[in-house]
Amino acid sequence: MLVVMKNDATEEQVQAVILEIQRMGYRGVPMPGAQRTAICIIGNKGPVEAAGLLAIPGVKEAIPVTKPYKLVSRETHPESTSFKIGSVTIGAGEPVIMAGPCAVESEDQALTIARFVREHGASVFRGGAFKPRTSPYSFQGLGEAGLKILEKVRRETSLPIITEAIDSESLALVEKYADIIQIGARNMQNYSLLRLAGQTRKPVLLKRGFAATIDEWLMAAEYIMSEGNHRVILCERGIRTFADNTRNTLDLSAIPSIKSASHLPVIVDPSHAAGLRDYVIPLSRGAIAVGADGLLVEVHHDPAHALSDGVQSLYLHQFDELMREIERLKGFL
Amino acid sequence: MLVVMKNDATEEQVQAVILEIQRMGYRGVPMPGAQRTAICIIGNKGPVEAAGLLAIPGVKEAIPVTKPYKLVSRETHPESTSFKIGSVTIGAGEPVIMAGPCAVESEDQALTIARFVREHGASVFRGGAFKPRTSPYSFQGLGEAGLKILEKVRRETSLPIITEAIDSESLALVEKYADIIQIGARNMQNYSLLRLAGQTRKPVLLKRGFAATIDEWLMAAEYIMSEGNHRVILCERGIRTFADNTRNTLDLSAIPSIKSASHLPVIVDPSHAAGLRDYVIPLSRGAIAVGADGLLVEVHHDPAHALSDGVQSLYLHQFDELMREIERLKGFL
Amino acid sequence: MLVVMKNDATEEQVQAVILEIQRMGYRGVPMPGAQRTAICIIGNKGPVEAAGLLAIPGVKEAIPVTKPYKLVSRETHPESTSFKIGSVTIGAGEPVIMAGPCAVESEDQALTIARFVREHGASVFRGGAFKPRTSPYSFQGLGEAGLKILEKVRRETSLPIITEAIDSESLALVEKYADIIQIGARNMQNYSLLRLAGQTRKPVLLKRGFAATIDEWLMAAEYIMSEGNHRVILCERGIRTFADNTRNTLDLSAIPSIKSASHLPVIVDPSHAAGLRDYVIPLSRGAIAVGADGLLVEVHHDPAHALSDGVQSLYLHQFDELMREIERLKGFL
Amino acid sequence: MLVVMKNDATEEQVQAVILEIQRMGYRGVPMPGAQRTAICIIGNKGPVEAAGLLAIPGVKEAIPVTKPYKLVSRETHPESTSFKIGSVTIGAGEPVIMAGPCAVESEDQALTIARFVREHGASVFRGGAFKPRTSPYSFQGLGEAGLKILEKVRRETSLPIITEAIDSESLALVEKYADIIQIGARNMQNYSLLRLAGQTRKPVLLKRGFAATIDEWLMAAEYIMSEGNHRVILCERGIRTFADNTRNTLDLSAIPSIKSASHLPVIVDPSHAAGLRDYVIPLSRGAIAVGADGLLVEVHHDPAHALSDGVQSLYLHQFDELMREIERLKGFL
Repeated sequence: MLVVMKNDATEEQVQAVILEIQRMGYRGVPMPGAQRTAICIIGNKGPVEAAGLLAIPGVKEAIPVTKPYKLVSRETHPESTSFKIGSVTIGAGEPVIMAGPCAVESEDQALTIARFVREHGASVFRGGAFKPRTSPYSFQGLGEAGLKILEKVRRETSLPIITEAIDSESLALVEKYADIIQIGARNMQNYSLLRLAGQTRKPVLLKRGFAATIDEWLMAAEYIMSEGNHRVILCERGIRTFADNTRNTLDLSAIPSIKSASHLPVIVDPSHAAGLRDYVIPLSRGAIAVGADGLLVEVHHDPAHALSDGVQSLYLHQFDELMREIERLKGFL
Repeated sequence: MLVVMKNDATEEQVQAVILEIQRMGYRGVPMPGAQRTAICIIGNKGPVEAAGLLAIPGVKEAIPVTKPYKLVSRETHPESTSFKIGSVTIGAGEPVIMAGPCAVESEDQALTIARFVREHGASVFRGGAFKPRTSPYSFQGLGEAGLKILEKVRRETSLPIITEAIDSESLALVEKYADIIQIGARNMQNYSLLRLAGQTRKPVLLKRGFAATIDEWLMAAEYIMSEGNHRVILCERGIRTFADNTRNTLDLSAIPSIKSASHLPVIVDPSHAAGLRDYVIPLSRGAIAVGADGLLVEVHHDPAHALSDGVQSLYLHQFDELMREIERLKGFL
Repeated sequence: MLVVMKNDATEEQVQAVILEIQRMGYRGVPMPGAQRTAICIIGNKGPVEAAGLLAIPGVKEAIPVTKPYKLVSRETHPESTSFKIGSVTIGAGEPVIMAGPCAVESEDQALTIARFVREHGASVFRGGAFKPRTSPYSFQGLGEAGLKILEKVRRETSLPIITEAIDSESLALVEKYADIIQIGARNMQNYSLLRLAGQTRKPVLLKRGFAATIDEWLMAAEYIMSEGNHRVILCERGIRTFADNTRNTLDLSAIPSIKSASHLPVIVDPSHAAGLRDYVIPLSRGAIAVGADGLLVEVHHDPAHALSDGVQSLYLHQFDELMREIERLKGFL
Repeated sequence: MLVVMKNDATEEQVQAVILEIQRMGYRGVPMPGAQRTAICIIGNKGPVEAAGLLAIPGVKEAIPVTKPYKLVSRETHPESTSFKIGSVTIGAGEPVIMAGPCAVESEDQALTIARFVREHGASVFRGGAFKPRTSPYSFQGLGEAGLKILEKVRRETSLPIITEAIDSESLALVEKYADIIQIGARNMQNYSLLRLAGQTRKPVLLKRGFAATIDEWLMAAEYIMSEGNHRVILCERGIRTFADNTRNTLDLSAIPSIKSASHLPVIVDPSHAAGLRDYVIPLSRGAIAVGADGLLVEVHHDPAHALSDGVQSLYLHQFDELMREIERLKGFL
């Protein structure tokens, strides 16, 4: 941390800062400048709390230097993390495609879509049984009945299952039935849920909160990892901005940012970012070309009658088209 | 809902839309325009799902008209809601000041601050026992021990207590010990927690998520109310924007927006919005002048050694100054 | 500036940074930390260019410390700036109210509104003759004919005139006819126009760009001041965010931010921020209570038939109400 | 436009709206719903002004339906626009790469970079002679001397030249010397400059303002086209958001949005969006994969000593790498 003094700070004020830094167990080294003095803190092993320093008269600001995350950081773990999900490996270069409906609606629906996406190259089946909906009056998912349908899908198609947990009760069920536990954007800072997910033995897919910085997102992953679960997949799904051309603004620069700061795999959900099915294919191509480790895509055999998110779900034939484009792009990577 | 057709839509496509609207149980009335046709949906009692309509060839967009909330709406409940908290009434014109430290750190700390703020005009004591922290390595609050300290504070000062619940476990405890249950910004869309809070008998203070629109915030309140708990207080605490002069951008226009859309009381937390104690007094004056029903303010007798949020906590003498300004301002409102 | 090295940076890389700092004319002092080394730059009189340093292997980031503005800064000019506009003084404690229609439409319209706002306490008359409109097909203002109407308004009412200049041609005219030159939000970073405004002898009101940080806004003011014109008034008018309850999000925390960083007066335009007339009165109260030096408000005697911005213009009787509220609030300040 | 009445609006108020719509020259058709009445406006040929309608008692809101742009719209001009720039055609499928330094610094610098980028596949040379800088004290470009260097570059390399105009004076010069006139993000709503650019005979590259919606950006292009210049290239360069991992957030969804709304070609500037050279190559791949018609990239042979934007400029060898990746990617598109 760098403590910057006001330009009229006195020598006594500088000394007071240095004493406080010593009291905190570190060392403060003054750097007299032309306009003002700054004091470098050295000897700290992690982030330094600024409040005590900012309270001292003459202090203008405190600039943090050390990043607050440890286990997720590429600095402490330089090689990229990869692990197996069913028969595929995520984080190893080959993009992993997770596809399926927003919500599990019936056995028929789930199986129809699952068979199609498996045949056309998906490696994981997605489908929500617990849906966090903006309105209490909207369809909230089938609950455990939905999980049982997902279990059947896995039995019939051998596709590993990813589905969302929204609280401690659903987490216990999801852990039991699914292969990957999804934590949604609205729960990215639901720290109790993150800790519980960290205590499971299943990989966790952690979506970026729609107003989360990269640092906050990585800190949320740190919550999971700090409980002992190191199989975390990050998922960019668009951030909230003033732009109204898509439901959220897909931040593809998050991919190189994550790759630089962390060793964890990161995939992209173009469906929730765009909110419009016609943008899903071009944004998927972009995501893979930027370097994402995979995609999470909504597909429905009858989007017009989907119980949720029909507007952004690909038709089956569009998923086929998407997979053919991704297949060709892979030749490039 | 208004369904807008593309300018080259055929008469058959228009008919297909009208048929689909009938299938949904409503009536569709075509409005031929100079450039394009639009179709009004009539007969619906609530929001209409757009997906099925957007799927029909020739449809350009679907524009929603009806707001999705009911119980929170001023249209269905024109008079403003007010209710008693301890000896004061919120929502009745007189601003209610809730003050105290970010976190309960010790009995001494809590009592020192509580006595001071009560003497200087606060009506409710705030203090966190369960702290949602960005880092898993930061101080997470004293838990139930903190709640017991808060109970003592109430016994000694008669101040009602507000404190945050972050999951089902802490909610059960907070309901037992506190007078108002706080749901934090990060949990504004933790719908399981909202439902549980709606099942309690205590008033709930619901902070705005830092990327939530007014509609989403009101829908979150609708979750609480739809479970039967109608004593909800909204709390604006800043939204996330590009602006870097404050930690979040306090959106004081949320106050007239809420007052126009809803009958619920709404207060302002200037401390978390600003992230800097020197801005708390001017923003508090602004909040009251705009028409907020109260304030939620962080105060600490020794901010430099606070275990969290010291940078934004008022010193005791600053709280005194704040209350004197609010007192005078009330005379002019 | 603080240059932060990667945690695996070698001693040679640290030395290379120090040499480059010397080559730039400053001195670099290494601060070895537990995880990494940082190097403080001392001896610089202004901001330091980071590119050369970031290019050196082993460098992780460069953190600037010195603010880039000089003439606008309160550090170099501690007392607040105030100056006369007509018979009133801006920046001296008493809020200055500038009111009038969005656009000058006719002599009748301008005089009707001007007489009313003067009688009810406005000190400056506003009215656009050159309108920057999003669409090339919208009404663009009356041009010089509008300025001549404004001249007549001043003659009849003695109110000083503020009106917008949008390019070098209109600036020359506005300088000739008006008392205050307004630079609009869309032109806040039109540096050629800022320089020209800086070469005039008239006070300049500089609106904040709707995506400008405080620093960028102050740098824009620095452009004007660096040409010799020190009579600059800043005007907060809302920033662009995700929030859709108002046209822009009024950032009232900009007032204490500007007051802390700069000595220049700062006023608030609630009309453009809100985009809805019903929010103008509460936001105006908030602006004054936060500490703004005045208001810029749109008023129209017949908003329903205004040629622009009718939706956000106050009716005459609402302006009367606003002024009575401001008058009472002044007693508080 | 759809006029939505309040749920307690009277029949008289509905009639008043219909009368006002007739007065405006259109026809209003009431749509009685379960909760409220809406009134569709028909017969309008362009956007309808809402102010007069919103002023009528009982009106809740007015929802626009028709987009305000004409010449830029794909609805009125279904086939994509393409045109020649030097020996290449933009908008015809093959991505056009425009590369060069942020600013022209010297003949040597410009020629060194130009020769390299031409050899490695660039089709257009970029380099600023007039630089809009946040600080009045930063390097502002070489002016006409810089344009003369660019002229020499074209003579020596046959590369067409793109360079920025920032006001009417520089525009006249840029038109004389350059092949494409660039309008920067800060000037996207400098309508006087847009009109002047529309009166030239040179293609215009229009960058998206960093807080501009797609509609505002297209309206800015409409300003240029409405003056008779139909050769407009749009350029996405990142928008301002809360995210701090890049200087701006590159909005690649703008590409399909533009492609859907307009017939104009659209390219991407990854350098200004990212603000960091290491992200330029992945984001460039993403831009091409999403469907951009080209790239505008900053390249410098000695970024560490560049007079501006060195931090985000590619090294020459990185440009080589970029072009090899784009070349391979083209095979897969």
